[in-house]
Amino acid sequence: MTILLNVTDQDRLDAFHETFARELPEIPVVTSDMDYAPEDIRYIFTWRPLDDWAALPNLEIVFSVSAGIDQFGALPEHITLVKMVDPKNTQKVIDYVLAACLSCMRDFPTYAERQRQKTWETSPIVTTAETTVTILGLGEIGEKAARTLASVGFTVTGWARSPREIEGVTCKTGEDGLDNLLAEADIVVCLLPLTDETRGLLSHDFFNRMKKGASLVHAGRGAQCVFADLGDALQSGQVGNAIVDVFDTEPLPPTDPIWEMPNLLITPHVAGRTDARTSAHNVSLNLQRLRDGKDLLWCVDRGKGY
Amino acid sequence: MTILLNVTDQDRLDAFHETFARELPEIPVVTSDMDYAPEDIRYIFTWRPLDDWAALPNLEIVFSVSAGIDQFGALPEHITLVKMVDPKNTQKVIDYVLAACLSCMRDFPTYAERQRQKTWETSPIVTTAETTVTILGLGEIGEKAARTLASVGFTVTGWARSPREIEGVTCKTGEDGLDNLLAEADIVVCLLPLTDETRGLLSHDFFNRMKKGASLVHAGRGAQCVFADLGDALQSGQVGNAIVDVFDTEPLPPTDPIWEMPNLLITPHVAGRTDARTSAHNVSLNLQRLRDGKDLLWCVDRGKGY
Repeated sequence: MTILLNVTDQDRLDAFHETFARELPEIPVVTSDMDYAPEDIRYIFTWRPLDDWAALPNLEIVFSVSAGIDQFGALPEHITLVKMVDPKNTQKVIDYVLAACLSCMRDFPTYAERQRQKTWETSPIVTTAETTVTILGLGEIGEKAARTLASVGFTVTGWARSPREIEGVTCKTGEDGLDNLLAEADIVVCLLPLTDETRGLLSHDFFNRMKKGASLVHAGRGAQCVFADLGDALQSGQVGNAIVDVFDTEPLPPTDPIWEMPNLLITPHVAGRTDARTSAHNVSLNLQRLRDGKDLLWCVDRGKGY
Repeated sequence: MTILLNVTDQDRLDAFHETFARELPEIPVVTSDMDYAPEDIRYIFTWRPLDDWAALPNLEIVFSVSAGIDQFGALPEHITLVKMVDPKNTQKVIDYVLAACLSCMRDFPTYAERQRQKTWETSPIVTTAETTVTILGLGEIGEKAARTLASVGFTVTGWARSPREIEGVTCKTGEDGLDNLLAEADIVVCLLPLTDETRGLLSHDFFNRMKKGASLVHAGRGAQCVFADLGDALQSGQVGNAIVDVFDTEPLPPTDPIWEMPNLLITPHVAGRTDARTSAHNVSLNLQRLRDGKDLLWCVDRGKGY
């Protein structure tokens, strides 16, 4: 009945030890640097998938550190996968999206580039009322981000796999819907989950469907973006500004050419971060429900992939 | 009765010619590149002060291009000074302040610096609810900016020369009031007019009264900031991030060391810009009021300096 904490952040470890000591003292807690018996591990809290899930022969439940769970594609079907739901993390991502959209609207990444070149050159000033933001992905975070952007005056549209209704937000689906939205968007925000359909979506073809000079905010997953194509689009001005938080390889290696792309602001996967206490409490709550014979919360539909 | 347009932007010139042709065709309009008789000029539309106001012996009214009029300190007292009031410009500055505060809260200038150094290093994530913004200067723009920042969740305080009451915003005056506010602020926004009291205010002493690592957004006037002190404060980490829109010399010369200060985003005086049509209409409206024997709108109190 042991839970393995496969994380190294001290704040997360502290939060789990305190929470389990108080709420669920009957469950032993071990960390990956300890000497534990693999067959004792029934539960694991982790962001990275294991190289070999068979190394924990009695594993029953994987508790993901984050809301995104695409990295667990190779997890055997008989193991339950639980995603993280953290309202405070949702607010962090919304703040990031708002900061990034306003920064793009006011050309901050372009000004940072001009600053590197010591060039004083002004861009026309546009207001939120004159700016359309399209949000790709209307899950919990995307929907709330759409409402927040609309509340500060942006015109907001959204795209999702299945039809959605959000007051004040024009929502579309399908390739035709995407075409229509991209043709009108001044800023495109990617908050999509990583699936077979979204892998490589942000490519040369995608950028060419956008208005010339429109901006990209990418806080989805690194594998959704073809970074060489983004570099070309930034170089040509097809994409005017970009603010990107997710990459194929993280940390981004010092040798990666992405660091030097023009009019791009790189943030190191900090759009959101699951709160340590919230995550410990969520896992504890679910294990109490299991003990009491109740359904688990926040289980991933392995067929849909989210 | 001629008006001299002492500006070079084509959009401003076009807007004045069109507006005056339609609304006030009896007033001749000349531009500074034309061959005009100085004694004909009764009115001037200008951002820069003249080197010698006596060159226009019959000048009666100076219409400022912008809301700030500190540059007209040497204007003879008998000449009326009218500032610009443009609601669309107010909205532009508010958008800029919101973009800049969110960018500082999420460490975007620091991330841009780390990007230059190709360093993947994360900062703790804070939310608007955990962030206090102090606005220096609670004129029309400052007050509206305060309300907007509060509406997205920031805790907002404000400082002004005379006592102010703004719902949801703690307002203080005087040096003690400033001390109290600076000690609590995570972000300080300068929107003050340039006066003898505010010249050089943003100095070593000021930065040391701020919390270690707090951020500065400066959209007041260049002469309010001692830029060498700002550079030291950024270098030491006393100021965590800065976004600065105004400088002593504009355009900032390529040789100026300000370009290379760390954790600083430079924008080229683009927080706001008076709308060309609005400014032409405001001047026309005031000259119609003069013709009709009514009081002029938006006259500057030369004693107070704003």
